[in-house]
Amino acid sequence: MSIDPHRAHVAPSRWDAVDVLAYKQEGAAPFRDVTRQVLFDDPELACQLRYFEVGPGGHTTLERHEHAHAVVVQRGGGRCLVGERVFDLAPLDLVHVPAMTWHQFRAAPDAPLGFLCMVNAVRDRPQLPDAGDLARLRDNPDIAAFIAADAPAS
Amino acid sequence: MSIDPHRAHVAPSRWDAVDVLAYKQEGAAPFRDVTRQVLFDDPELACQLRYFEVGPGGHTTLERHEHAHAVVVQRGGGRCLVGERVFDLAPLDLVHVPAMTWHQFRAAPDAPLGFLCMVNAVRDRPQLPDAGDLARLRDNPDIAAFIAADAPAS
Repeated sequence: MSIDPHRAHVAPSRWDAVDVLAYKQEGAAPFRDVTRQVLFDDPELACQLRYFEVGPGGHTTLERHEHAHAVVVQRGGGRCLVGERVFDLAPLDLVHVPAMTWHQFRAAPDAPLGFLCMVNAVRDRPQLPDAGDLARLRDNPDIAAFIAADAPAS
Repeated sequence: MSIDPHRAHVAPSRWDAVDVLAYKQEGAAPFRDVTRQVLFDDPELACQLRYFEVGPGGHTTLERHEHAHAVVVQRGGGRCLVGERVFDLAPLDLVHVPAMTWHQFRAAPDAPLGFLCMVNAVRDRPQLPDAGDLARLRDNPDIAAFIAADAPAS
């Protein structure tokens, strides 16, 4: 399918000819209030560019994988975990998630968090933390507080 | 060189730990008032993500190449040529430039045009139009008007 040369931004976080998709299949992994839009998926490009929006108080899945992420915040605010550190996020901030690094994005309680995410088109599936991984993550009080709201009871 | 996991947006079109670079070598190709910033250049990612800013009244080089571009406008306004068509640009609009397609970005007279551009890390060099290419482009009055300001006298 060819991609339109120009697709207008027609409303907050909405574009012409871009579908709003489920972030993941319900029940596949823990997350809350996240949408996914694939802005560019082109066989001529070795990466995809996606737009994710996390609703106020929502969060992406805590996960890691062999592929890296390059993120540009577009809207709202929140925080993210990358490896051992938690960062405050504001529009246009840049986030880099290296291979096999635990990461999660959380919107502020009162604002969405919208961000672009560049990722290799060919990539591995995310891994979820097991009980041992979660225990190790929780050894860091900052990370324990960050992930407290949604960590599975394990 | 490792990439910082978080780089803040510290001023309009400026980030921590991101250098503002020349767009191209002066004299290498026609352009006016363009800066380039490489936001993500990671061996783990098959694409780079760059930020270009065209000053008011400025323009990128009219060119084509085998690699594709995926663009997300971030700031200001202007117009772009993609193939046979000219599009008005506003923040967050999406532009797709397929392989071997003539393209150029122009800022409005009174506003900058800032945009993200995703591109394969391994790519060919841009080609400039020769006199015959320019004559064919100018057969379309919309394109003739668009490129009139900087076309080389050939």
